[in-house]
Amino acid sequence: MPLSPEQQAEIDALRAEPMPTLRATVPGIEAHLYKAVPLLDHGFVRVIDYMGDDSAICQAARVSYGKGTKSVQNDEGLIRYLMRHWHSTPFEMCELKLHVKLPVFVARQWIRHRTANVNEYSARYSILDREFYIPEPDALAAQSAINNQGRGEALQGEEAARVLEWLKTDAMRSYDHYAEMISQDGQQGLARELARMNLPANIYTQWYWKVDLHNLFHFLRLRADSHAQYEIRVYADEICKLVADWVPFAYKAFEDYRLGAVTMSAQMVDCLRRMLAGEEVTEENCEMSKREFREFKAMLG
Amino acid sequence: MPLSPEQQAEIDALRAEPMPTLRATVPGIEAHLYKAVPLLDHGFVRVIDYMGDDSAICQAARVSYGKGTKSVQNDEGLIRYLMRHWHSTPFEMCELKLHVKLPVFVARQWIRHRTANVNEYSARYSILDREFYIPEPDALAAQSAINNQGRGEALQGEEAARVLEWLKTDAMRSYDHYAEMISQDGQQGLARELARMNLPANIYTQWYWKVDLHNLFHFLRLRADSHAQYEIRVYADEICKLVADWVPFAYKAFEDYRLGAVTMSAQMVDCLRRMLAGEEVTEENCEMSKREFREFKAMLG
Amino acid sequence: MPLSPEQQAEIDALRAEPMPTLRATVPGIEAHLYKAVPLLDHGFVRVIDYMGDDSAICQAARVSYGKGTKSVQNDEGLIRYLMRHWHSTPFEMCELKLHVKLPVFVARQWIRHRTANVNEYSARYSILDREFYIPEPDALAAQSAINNQGRGEALQGEEAARVLEWLKTDAMRSYDHYAEMISQDGQQGLARELARMNLPANIYTQWYWKVDLHNLFHFLRLRADSHAQYEIRVYADEICKLVADWVPFAYKAFEDYRLGAVTMSAQMVDCLRRMLAGEEVTEENCEMSKREFREFKAMLG
Amino acid sequence: MPLSPEQQAEIDALRAEPMPTLRATVPGIEAHLYKAVPLLDHGFVRVIDYMGDDSAICQAARVSYGKGTKSVQNDEGLIRYLMRHWHSTPFEMCELKLHVKLPVFVARQWIRHRTANVNEYSARYSILDREFYIPEPDALAAQSAINNQGRGEALQGEEAARVLEWLKTDAMRSYDHYAEMISQDGQQGLARELARMNLPANIYTQWYWKVDLHNLFHFLRLRADSHAQYEIRVYADEICKLVADWVPFAYKAFEDYRLGAVTMSAQMVDCLRRMLAGEEVTEENCEMSKREFREFKAMLG
Repeated sequence: MPLSPEQQAEIDALRAEPMPTLRATVPGIEAHLYKAVPLLDHGFVRVIDYMGDDSAICQAARVSYGKGTKSVQNDEGLIRYLMRHWHSTPFEMCELKLHVKLPVFVARQWIRHRTANVNEYSARYSILDREFYIPEPDALAAQSAINNQGRGEALQGEEAARVLEWLKTDAMRSYDHYAEMISQDGQQGLARELARMNLPANIYTQWYWKVDLHNLFHFLRLRADSHAQYEIRVYADEICKLVADWVPFAYKAFEDYRLGAVTMSAQMVDCLRRMLAGEEVTEENCEMSKREFREFKAMLG
Repeated sequence: MPLSPEQQAEIDALRAEPMPTLRATVPGIEAHLYKAVPLLDHGFVRVIDYMGDDSAICQAARVSYGKGTKSVQNDEGLIRYLMRHWHSTPFEMCELKLHVKLPVFVARQWIRHRTANVNEYSARYSILDREFYIPEPDALAAQSAINNQGRGEALQGEEAARVLEWLKTDAMRSYDHYAEMISQDGQQGLARELARMNLPANIYTQWYWKVDLHNLFHFLRLRADSHAQYEIRVYADEICKLVADWVPFAYKAFEDYRLGAVTMSAQMVDCLRRMLAGEEVTEENCEMSKREFREFKAMLG
Repeated sequence: MPLSPEQQAEIDALRAEPMPTLRATVPGIEAHLYKAVPLLDHGFVRVIDYMGDDSAICQAARVSYGKGTKSVQNDEGLIRYLMRHWHSTPFEMCELKLHVKLPVFVARQWIRHRTANVNEYSARYSILDREFYIPEPDALAAQSAINNQGRGEALQGEEAARVLEWLKTDAMRSYDHYAEMISQDGQQGLARELARMNLPANIYTQWYWKVDLHNLFHFLRLRADSHAQYEIRVYADEICKLVADWVPFAYKAFEDYRLGAVTMSAQMVDCLRRMLAGEEVTEENCEMSKREFREFKAMLG
Repeated sequence: MPLSPEQQAEIDALRAEPMPTLRATVPGIEAHLYKAVPLLDHGFVRVIDYMGDDSAICQAARVSYGKGTKSVQNDEGLIRYLMRHWHSTPFEMCELKLHVKLPVFVARQWIRHRTANVNEYSARYSILDREFYIPEPDALAAQSAINNQGRGEALQGEEAARVLEWLKTDAMRSYDHYAEMISQDGQQGLARELARMNLPANIYTQWYWKVDLHNLFHFLRLRADSHAQYEIRVYADEICKLVADWVPFAYKAFEDYRLGAVTMSAQMVDCLRRMLAGEEVTEENCEMSKREFREFKAMLG
């Protein structure tokens, strides 16, 4: 359970006082506000704030004085049109702010998405908690035999046990030394900004992360994808659910035109047309590399 | 008066239905929501939405579970510290969305601030209104005699009258031709995306503009400055007031450490120390250019 | 002809002095350096500088000490892999700097691509030239009957003549008044920053524009597209040719996986699978909107 | 010594073949190209490529057809003017590409500067080397007694020895286990993307980092500052030297108007004027906080 009683009390206090507002308001996401959704062994994601709703996307697209379009159906149709034709700026008019607790090696992938605002807990200034990500047995995967950047089956038996033991004991020992190094009890105490260097990448950090909906969708397309590392995908998958409760039309359009869509190269389109005309297309006559042809076949199920 | 009765009715409708929310809420800015503040002859600025408050800046700086700091005084102290020491990321945690109506030549300056989200009214798709910026007599300024990029006194007498007459009649004639060119009454009708090219840069456009507080302060520092062109400065000055009602601690810190602050070069600091030590510093012994020395003297009042 | 003899002499001078460098160098783009390629009636695009080559993309992808991969074939294969799998950061390691002269209404579309560096000729500081875009007869298109944001046939006969006459005379009159307003001959002279507001959007401006290859490809995908306005498309098409001479492998991959590619929605992929299984898919049983089904049929040729 | 013979041979090969180019070329930075400048115990910075020179800043500011201004003196004057008046876009017209090897905890600070292009060595795909940052004795600093985010004196005696021993042995043990976990010798072998989580933050990583001169100056102002952590400052200080050899006028202006400059708040300017008028300004009558007054006194030397 990732929250202390004090933290839970602070969250409860924030949820206790609804205020009247004239802003676009979405009950579906209000229900999530401030609550921590647990992820991995010590992580979470919390919605801290949001700006805009489905209607706000239409309102900006039309630069209107009032709400988006005349009707909810029109809003949905316009949003789907905008998504399909890559009109991205109206989606930038919605904004989401999250509080995320996550292992450092996940944070290092996440931060590559540059078009977002970030405030991370400072290990120069503060002391990190003794919390490390230790994978569940079925997430303790072997290196993929066919893909340098992928995972295979879960480790088995003694090997799995040995790996888990190392991950745990190395983390604990590193933290013990971290704590002893910064201690000022009878000694000078190493600077925090130096002592943190002894901590492994599975220690948890946390940050406030704020992003507009267009850039969030870009993040989700890459990170809620089967090629993304499992440990970041659990965060992306959870955020997908939150977004679906916040801007349901935009999220559905995202599912249809991005998440569930495929992009076919010029060569693939050419092959497809030949196939629909009755021709048999093979690896030999397709003018694609072996790998591309395999990807093409996979697209066609 | 820039709003039609239909537009005003849409705004009134948006202001008529407060909703409960758990988000950070600021009565001072709620009072402005959706209302159009008139600027120049046909322009306006309207607050459409906001995210965050002074406390949200502290909450992000501390990556906290509840509100910012324990007390309002602590919030103000922390905000001033962050501003003074250029810790900009916590200010990025607040976001403002505006609807702005402004002349095209002002829009062209404004858009250079790239770190913002924009949806502009499309003259490819829609028909522009017959509204042009015609300066008030005291804003009809002569070219500065000393600064290539500045203004001098207001034009006088016949010259002023002649200029105003040209601005008005050229605008009207251009718009007449624009309207006749796109008309499909008894003719094909020129494409809107082409016809717009006949319209001068004082025609009004409008956009939704969304920006975080850090980048908004950067915009305001440059555009609420005496060197900025008057016609953009009136927008910046008005936005300053809105921001002061939204995040009063942050705005006060911005006034003290940015708007009202001066930056002194290494040479200026050196001269200053010499002056405080009783030495007389002159243009000859200051090791600055003539122009810099003039700027230095101005800083010292 | 867009260049004065003095401008041509400056360009010739820049091309007269090759210097030795150890940087990645591409003869194909060196041949274009500084030369103005004429576009529209008074516009041009000039390559001012470039950084990197195809090999530099691989070098960055591999974070290598020497060149990219061991062989040219490997470079091409890696580049195609990176493009296909949306690994965009290695393409950001190449940079192009252009000098572009273009009508203001084109510049206003162009500037929406925010991830680029821009220095525009200042009409606050300097005086604009008397140069306006007047379309060729076959570019004088009517509004599309089926697409609010598109063009139809060219205007014919008297209507075409009338439009051209207005565009020309309105431009000339506006410029005459501009020139007279800023004149300081026997009068105060209106400030340049104000006088420019009388000039229509077909006047030419110019800027230095610098962008990395990833963001340039994004610009080209949207602007070298049949849905882009013709007047910006001629610039994008020309830049495509320059890029093909600069980074031929990357450009070919861009053609295959972006320009010539199609993105199919989840529904389209589903229909496609049904079609390949022999089922007849119609507008009635496809679970797409009318418009989407039309787009789908177009993809399949 | 951070380079293997193979790496050195690759660098030598890149330096062996000068090519003719028509681009702006700077001998001062050509001399550095590809060479690794050692930093900390295993790190380095290498210049991989550059675009532009001092003259290119002026060329863009003036949107000129040829070089920048007529003379070298004019170039310097214009550059100093642009820097002093915060005209930042011309500086964006120069670009620098570096290859940097640095400890992960330094990389985590560095990456917060978002307006840059980055390709980092992938520990999902590749195996990290056994190289860790172990501070020199005089860099093994105690926590500051007065500043939560700072360092005090170097640790002494047994405490220093104990800390060094822990840093070394924890790093070695973590790496041993990392190597054993990914080994496929008689076992499945843990996925690389998981095994890396056992490695502490003082392990070295490397990346290609490309940035424009304006954003580089912003980075240097914050990181070549006495408040920056020592381990990132050594990189910033070294990059300062490289930039001085590349764009000497711009670098001098940066030193005078940014690095060596001070920003005084409205209150400080007020106090200064009172002091220059002969008044004695004290902590009691200055209307600043204790801390600000201390900062003010420090500015005045």
